[in-house]
Amino acid sequence: MTINYHKEIKTSHTWKFFVLLFRWKGSIWKAIYMETIIFLICYGIISVVYRTAMSEPSQRTFESVIRYCDKRLSFIPLEFVLGFFVTIVVDRWTKLWRTVGFIDDVCLLANLYVRGTSEKAIIYRRNIARYCALTQLLVFRDVSMRTRRRFPTMETVVAAGFMSKDELDLYNSYTTKNNSRLGKKYWIPANWALCMTYKARKDGYIESDYFKAQMEGEIRTWRTNIEWVCNYDWVPLPLMYPQLVCLAVNLYFLVSIIARQLVIEKHKMVDEVDVYFPVMTFLQFIFYMGWLKVIEVMLNPFGEDDDDFETNALIDRNITMGLKMVDNTMKTPELLKDQFFDE
Amino acid sequence: MTINYHKEIKTSHTWKFFVLLFRWKGSIWKAIYMETIIFLICYGIISVVYRTAMSEPSQRTFESVIRYCDKRLSFIPLEFVLGFFVTIVVDRWTKLWRTVGFIDDVCLLANLYVRGTSEKAIIYRRNIARYCALTQLLVFRDVSMRTRRRFPTMETVVAAGFMSKDELDLYNSYTTKNNSRLGKKYWIPANWALCMTYKARKDGYIESDYFKAQMEGEIRTWRTNIEWVCNYDWVPLPLMYPQLVCLAVNLYFLVSIIARQLVIEKHKMVDEVDVYFPVMTFLQFIFYMGWLKVIEVMLNPFGEDDDDFETNALIDRNITMGLKMVDNTMKTPELLKDQFFDE
Amino acid sequence: MTINYHKEIKTSHTWKFFVLLFRWKGSIWKAIYMETIIFLICYGIISVVYRTAMSEPSQRTFESVIRYCDKRLSFIPLEFVLGFFVTIVVDRWTKLWRTVGFIDDVCLLANLYVRGTSEKAIIYRRNIARYCALTQLLVFRDVSMRTRRRFPTMETVVAAGFMSKDELDLYNSYTTKNNSRLGKKYWIPANWALCMTYKARKDGYIESDYFKAQMEGEIRTWRTNIEWVCNYDWVPLPLMYPQLVCLAVNLYFLVSIIARQLVIEKHKMVDEVDVYFPVMTFLQFIFYMGWLKVIEVMLNPFGEDDDDFETNALIDRNITMGLKMVDNTMKTPELLKDQFFDE
Amino acid sequence: MTINYHKEIKTSHTWKFFVLLFRWKGSIWKAIYMETIIFLICYGIISVVYRTAMSEPSQRTFESVIRYCDKRLSFIPLEFVLGFFVTIVVDRWTKLWRTVGFIDDVCLLANLYVRGTSEKAIIYRRNIARYCALTQLLVFRDVSMRTRRRFPTMETVVAAGFMSKDELDLYNSYTTKNNSRLGKKYWIPANWALCMTYKARKDGYIESDYFKAQMEGEIRTWRTNIEWVCNYDWVPLPLMYPQLVCLAVNLYFLVSIIARQLVIEKHKMVDEVDVYFPVMTFLQFIFYMGWLKVIEVMLNPFGEDDDDFETNALIDRNITMGLKMVDNTMKTPELLKDQFFDE
Amino acid sequence: MTINYHKEIKTSHTWKFFVLLFRWKGSIWKAIYMETIIFLICYGIISVVYRTAMSEPSQRTFESVIRYCDKRLSFIPLEFVLGFFVTIVVDRWTKLWRTVGFIDDVCLLANLYVRGTSEKAIIYRRNIARYCALTQLLVFRDVSMRTRRRFPTMETVVAAGFMSKDELDLYNSYTTKNNSRLGKKYWIPANWALCMTYKARKDGYIESDYFKAQMEGEIRTWRTNIEWVCNYDWVPLPLMYPQLVCLAVNLYFLVSIIARQLVIEKHKMVDEVDVYFPVMTFLQFIFYMGWLKVIEVMLNPFGEDDDDFETNALIDRNITMGLKMVDNTMKTPELLKDQFFDE
Repeated sequence: MTINYHKEIKTSHTWKFFVLLFRWKGSIWKAIYMETIIFLICYGIISVVYRTAMSEPSQRTFESVIRYCDKRLSFIPLEFVLGFFVTIVVDRWTKLWRTVGFIDDVCLLANLYVRGTSEKAIIYRRNIARYCALTQLLVFRDVSMRTRRRFPTMETVVAAGFMSKDELDLYNSYTTKNNSRLGKKYWIPANWALCMTYKARKDGYIESDYFKAQMEGEIRTWRTNIEWVCNYDWVPLPLMYPQLVCLAVNLYFLVSIIARQLVIEKHKMVDEVDVYFPVMTFLQFIFYMGWLKVIEVMLNPFGEDDDDFETNALIDRNITMGLKMVDNTMKTPELLKDQFFDE
Repeated sequence: MTINYHKEIKTSHTWKFFVLLFRWKGSIWKAIYMETIIFLICYGIISVVYRTAMSEPSQRTFESVIRYCDKRLSFIPLEFVLGFFVTIVVDRWTKLWRTVGFIDDVCLLANLYVRGTSEKAIIYRRNIARYCALTQLLVFRDVSMRTRRRFPTMETVVAAGFMSKDELDLYNSYTTKNNSRLGKKYWIPANWALCMTYKARKDGYIESDYFKAQMEGEIRTWRTNIEWVCNYDWVPLPLMYPQLVCLAVNLYFLVSIIARQLVIEKHKMVDEVDVYFPVMTFLQFIFYMGWLKVIEVMLNPFGEDDDDFETNALIDRNITMGLKMVDNTMKTPELLKDQFFDE
Repeated sequence: MTINYHKEIKTSHTWKFFVLLFRWKGSIWKAIYMETIIFLICYGIISVVYRTAMSEPSQRTFESVIRYCDKRLSFIPLEFVLGFFVTIVVDRWTKLWRTVGFIDDVCLLANLYVRGTSEKAIIYRRNIARYCALTQLLVFRDVSMRTRRRFPTMETVVAAGFMSKDELDLYNSYTTKNNSRLGKKYWIPANWALCMTYKARKDGYIESDYFKAQMEGEIRTWRTNIEWVCNYDWVPLPLMYPQLVCLAVNLYFLVSIIARQLVIEKHKMVDEVDVYFPVMTFLQFIFYMGWLKVIEVMLNPFGEDDDDFETNALIDRNITMGLKMVDNTMKTPELLKDQFFDE
Repeated sequence: MTINYHKEIKTSHTWKFFVLLFRWKGSIWKAIYMETIIFLICYGIISVVYRTAMSEPSQRTFESVIRYCDKRLSFIPLEFVLGFFVTIVVDRWTKLWRTVGFIDDVCLLANLYVRGTSEKAIIYRRNIARYCALTQLLVFRDVSMRTRRRFPTMETVVAAGFMSKDELDLYNSYTTKNNSRLGKKYWIPANWALCMTYKARKDGYIESDYFKAQMEGEIRTWRTNIEWVCNYDWVPLPLMYPQLVCLAVNLYFLVSIIARQLVIEKHKMVDEVDVYFPVMTFLQFIFYMGWLKVIEVMLNPFGEDDDDFETNALIDRNITMGLKMVDNTMKTPELLKDQFFDE
Repeated sequence: MTINYHKEIKTSHTWKFFVLLFRWKGSIWKAIYMETIIFLICYGIISVVYRTAMSEPSQRTFESVIRYCDKRLSFIPLEFVLGFFVTIVVDRWTKLWRTVGFIDDVCLLANLYVRGTSEKAIIYRRNIARYCALTQLLVFRDVSMRTRRRFPTMETVVAAGFMSKDELDLYNSYTTKNNSRLGKKYWIPANWALCMTYKARKDGYIESDYFKAQMEGEIRTWRTNIEWVCNYDWVPLPLMYPQLVCLAVNLYFLVSIIARQLVIEKHKMVDEVDVYFPVMTFLQFIFYMGWLKVIEVMLNPFGEDDDDFETNALIDRNITMGLKMVDNTMKTPELLKDQFFDE
C-alpha cells in the first residue's frame, strides 16, 4: 500500500515535518530495524571479546588492526555512489508511475464517440473498457507478485469477470513457440478493443471515421504505456550497478564493525570518552542503510514493499470506474443558465 | 500566497540580490526562526551547566564526550543527502506546476468552435468552461486544505455557483462502493463537458466533426493534467526518503548541541577564543535547516505555506476569466489595414 | 543584450577558450568587480587595524578569534549549495528560452493556409501575425522592465503600430475586477487571431476545415508558450531557496574577512610567507561570487543584465519578419528541373 | 542477454537485496575479476621486492616514494568524475532503450486499418509488418556485432525470410557513391512499407484517407526511432570523455600499486598492523573499477556484454509476433454481455 | 569529423576500454598536449631557478610562499564546478544533436503523398527535398565555420546546385533592414517548400487535404528544428559561466606552478622523495585540463574540433539521399507471399 503523508506536511511550521518520523508503516524504521540489530550484535560481540577475552599483546595487535581499517574507511565514498544512484532510480520510478495506467481517458472517449443507448452500443463500450483493463491485468500479473498471487491462473481471471470463457479460449488459441517474456500475448485484448472500434463504426455507433481514429489513438496510447511497464521490467538497470551500490554499503559496515571499535589504550589520554555503545556509528548506519533501503524500495515499485504501487487496487478501480463511466452515456444535466449568466 | 521577487532581481548589480534577504513573508527567516531559538536555548542550557554547575572531574568527562562527538559529526554527510534530494523535489514541484491548470486554451477553443450568439450556444460554451473549472475545483478540494476549508461541503460548491442544484443531484446519483482516493468522481464534470461537445455538434453549433474532435482533445488534456495533480498527491515519494532527510538534519543538530560545546581547558592554549555564543554553528544551523525547509515547502506545494500554489485564487481566476472568454464570441476588431500595410 | 561567443570557441585549440576571459560585456569581471573591491577594502581595513593599531594582548585575542573562525569556515559547504542550485536554475532558464517565442511557424502557416492575393486575404494574414506579436508584447510588458520602459502605456503600443485605436478600445472594454497577475488580458489578441481563422474560413480564404484546425493549433501553441513565460514569472522558485544561496555566499565571505587574516605570530615559524594581499582568498572570492552571479543572471532572464533575453529586439523581429512572411504568399520560384535532375 | 533480477528484490526485507551479490552472469564479479587479479599480482610483486630484495637504504628511498605518492593520490577525484559521467551515460542508455523498437503498435494498426480477409489484404498487412522488421534488422546489423554475426551478408537476410530475392535485387539497385554511415539505405524497406499503405488505399483495403495517414504516422514513428538508434551509434559522446574517465581510474590504481605499499618502518610504532594483503585498497579497487565497468557496459548497449540489449531476440520476436498480429484480423470474441452487466 | 569508437568497446572485457587511450584523433592527448608542455616548462623554469639560482634566504622566503599557496589551493573546488557544468553542457549538446536534422522523414512523406511519375510531379518532390536541404545549409553557413568556408557566398550555393540562379534572385529580393542574427532569412526556402505542397495539391498530385496537412506538418517540424539550431547558437549559456569555469581551471594551475614546487629543506626529513618531475601534479593537470577540454568541445558542437558535428557531410548526405528518396516513387517489390505465409 502506498503511504500517503502529504496532509501532514501541509505547512513547514516548526517540527511539522518532524511528525513524519513517528510512523511505522513504510517507514525507514521498519525497513532497517533488523539490519541495525544484527549490526549492533556483531559489533557488541567483538567489543566484548576485545575488552575481556584478549590478552594484552593480542589487544595491542587488534588495536593496530582497528587503526589500519579506520584510517582507510574513507576509501569507499558511500555518499557519492548513493547520491548519484538514487537520482537515477527516482527518475526511473517517476517514469514508471507516469505510465502505470488510469483508464479514465479511454472510457470517457468511448463514452463520447461510441454513441447510442441500445444494448449493443452499451456492450461495445463496456467491452472496450473491459479489454483495456484486461491488458493491464495481464501485464501486472507478470510484473507484480501481488497480482500474480491474486490471479494465479487465467481461470481466476475469468472467474473475476475480466474475461469470459469464450474469450479465454480465443486467447489460448494464439500459440507462440516462444515462452519467454518476448512471447507474451498482452496485445491480444488490446487488439480486441481496437476491433471493437471497427465494428462499432460499421454498425454506425461511431459516427465518423475521424472519431474512430481518435478512439483508436487513445487505446493505442493506453496499450503502449502498459507495454512500457512490461519492458521496463524486462530490462532493468544493468545488474552491476545495484550490485555495486549494495556491495559498497554492506562492505563499508562490515569493515566498520572492526574499524569503529574504540581503542582502550587511548582512553588514558582523557581525550575521548569510552562509550560502550557506538552512538555515532549507529547513527551513520541508520543513515546510509536507510538511503540504500530507499533505493531498494524504488528500484522495483511492483514489489511487495509498503510503499510499492498498489497494482490490485488499481486493477479494481479501473474495471469498476471504467464500466461506470461508459454506462450512462447521455445522462447530462439540463441545459440551463448558470448562476453568473447575466453578469 | 506565492511570493514574487523577480522584479527585484532584474539585474545582478552589486548587492541587488542582497535585498532579497530583507523580506519576511515566505522567507527563510520566517521558516526557521522557531527552530533556531529552540536550538540556541538547548545549546545555552547545556553550556551553562557545563561551565558553572559541573565539578572539575565531570567537566573532564563531559569534555571527552564533546571531543568524541565532534570528531564523528562528519559521519552524516548532510550536504549530499540534501543536495540530491532537493534536486528530485524541485523536479517534482516543476512538473506539478506545469499541470496545475490554466483554463484559457479550453475556453478559447470553445469560443472558436462552438459558434453562434443564440442563448443556447452561449450556454453550451459557458457550460464547457464551468464544468472544466468544476473538475479542477473537485480535485483541489481533495488536495489542498485551503480549498477544502473554502468548500467544506458540496453544497458550498453549489452556493458558489460552480454547480447547479440539479447537477449536484446528478453527481450524487453516481455511487461508488469504494470511498478511497481511487473511487473519486472527478471525471463526472469532465464527462459532462465532453457530452456538451456532442450535443453542440448535433445542434449544429459545432460545424464539423473535426472541430468537435479538436474541442474534445483540449478538454481531455485539461482533465488528464488535473488528474495527475491528484495522482501525484496520491503517490508521493516513498515516505522513507523524506524521513531519512529529516532525520539526518535533526540528528545532526541534536548531536551538535553537545559536540559543538567549546572545551574550556583548551582555552589556556590561547589557540582559540572562548565564544559564549556559537557563531559558526549558528550559521551552519541556519544554512542546513533552511535547506531542509526549502524541501519541506516544495514537497507539498498544495499545502499552506506562504509559497505554496494559490489554489483558491486559481479557481476564481479560471471561472471568471473562463466565462468572460466564452461570452463575447464574435466581438473582433474591424478588418482594417494595419499601420505598416503599404511599406 | 545576449552575449555571443560561439565563434571564438570554434575549436578547443590551446588557449582558444582563454580569450573568453578578456571580454568585459556580460563578463564575470563586470559582474563582480564592485563586490570584490568592497570585500578587499573591508579586509584591508581590518588587516591594518590588527597589525598597527592593536596592543599585543588584543592582538593575541584577535588571533584566537581568527583561528576560531578559520577552523569552522568549512561548516558552510558553498560548493554543494551552488552546484545543485545552478543546475536547477539552468534547467529553468533553458525551458524559458524554449518557450520565449519565434513567430515564424504561425506566419508560415498563415501564409500556406489563408490563400489569396486580394487585399482582404492579405489583411487576414497580417492580422493573424500582428495579433500574435501583440500577445507576446503584452506579456513581455509585464515580465520585462526593458519592454515596459519602451511601452509604458497602451497608447505607446498603439503608436508603435502593434494595435489600432479601435482595437485598444475593444481591448479596454473587457474589464476585470481582478487587477492582479491572474486577471491579465493576454488572451484577447490571441482570441482575435483565432477568430480571424473563423472568418477567413467563412470567406473562403481557408479552403478546408482541416486547414483551419491546423492554423488554430499553431496559434494555440504560440499562445500557450507565451502564457508559460508569464506563469513562470508569476511563480518563481520559492523565495527561500535563492535567499539561502545568497545568504550562504555572503555570510561565508563576511566571516572570511576575519577568518582569513594572517596571524602574524605564526610568521616567526617561517612556515608561511606574510602576504599583505590575501591572494588565495581573493581568488576564492572571485570564484564563488562569480558562481552566485551566474545564478542571479539566469534566475530572471527577463531582467536587464547584459546576458538577459533581448525582449525588445525579439518583438521588433517578430512583427517585421512576421508581416514580411505573410505578405508575398505566392511568390515562389518557377518549377524548373534542378541541377542534379538527370543524374 | 539482459539479466533480470526484479523478482528477487520484490521487497526490501532484510538482506533480500544481498542475494543479488551471489550472481555471476552480468555481475560485477565477472566484469572485474581479471583486472583485480592483475592488480593484486602487480602489488604483490612490488611488495615482495621491497620487503626482501632491497637493501636498507633503497628501502628508505622507496618508502619516501611511497609517502610522496600516497599523499597526492587525492589529486584525482575519482568519485566526481565517475558520478557525473555515469549519470550522463545512464541517461543515454535509457533514451536508447526507449527507441529500440517493439513492433506491436505498427502491426495492431495495420490490423485495424488494412481490412479484409482476402489473400491480397493479408499480404499487404504481412508486408507492412515484415518491411518494418527488416528496417530494424538492417540497422541492428550495423550497430550490433551479434546481429552482424548472425546476418553476415544480405543473402543470409534473404535466407532467414526477412526479404525475398526480388526485394534484395531492388534494394541493391539503389546505389550510393557514399559508402560511409551516412550513405546507409535503411530507409528503403520503410519506404516500401509506406508505399504499401498507398496501394492498399487504392485497392480499397484502407477505407479512408484519414486511416491511411494514421497508418503512415505509425510507420514513420517506427522508422524515426530506428534511425535514432543508428544516429546515436554514429555520434557517440565525444571520445575524450570516456578516455578521461578510463584514464583517471587506471592511473589512480597504477599509482596505488606503489602508493598503497605499507611502509615497514612505521610498523615499529605499533600504530598499525602490517597486513600483507592490502584489504582496504582491494575493496576500493573493486568499488571504483566496478563503477567504471557499469559505465563501459552502458556506454554501448549494442555490444556483447551479458547485460546488453538482446538485438537478435528482439528481431525474432518482432517478426514472429508481428506476423501473428496481422494474420487473424477479424477474430474477436462474440459480442456478449459481460459478467457485471446488470449491476 | 566525429570520432566513432563504439565498435571497440562492444564488451567490457579486461582492458577493452583501455585501447581507447591509444587513439590520437579527437583524443584527450591531442587536446591537451600543448597546454601540458607549456605548464611543464613553466614549472621547470621556476624549479631550476629555485634550486640553483637562489640564495639560501631567498630560498627560505620562496619556500614559505610555496607553503602558503599549497595550503590554500583547495579553496577552488575544481571538481564541483567542472562536474556540474559538464552535465549542463552535455545536456545542451544532446538536445542539439536531436535537432540537427536528417531529411529522411520529409522525403519519405513527399514520396508517399505527392504522387505521380510525370516530370512535374517529380519536380515537385525534388523541390520539396531541395528546399528543405537548402534551409539547413543556410543555417549551417551561419553556425559552422566549416560550412561557411565551403560556401563563402550565396553564389557558391548556387554553383553547388542547392539553388538555381532564379531562386537566388527571388531570395535576394526579400530585403531586411535588420542585418543581425534576428533578420536572417532562413524561412524563405522553407516557405517555398510549403508552397510546393499547396501547388501540388491544386494540380492534383496530392490527393487529399489531409495529406497536404501531413506533408506541411513534417516540413514545419524540419524547419522548427533547424531554427532551434540557430537559436541555440544565438543565445548560448551566459558568457559568465564558461568564463568562470575556464578561469577556475587556469588559475588553479597557475597557482600550482608555485604551490606544487617541492620544498628542498623538507627533504632532509627523508619523509618524501625529491622528485624533479612533479608526477602527481602532472597527472592532475591532465585530468582537470582534459575535463575542461571535454566541455570546450561540447559547448560549441558546430566548431572545428575533431569531434564536432560534420555539418558538411550532413548537408551532402541530405541532398543526395533526399533526392534519391523522392526519385523512384513507385518502385516497390511485387506483392508476393512471404516465406512464412502458410505457417
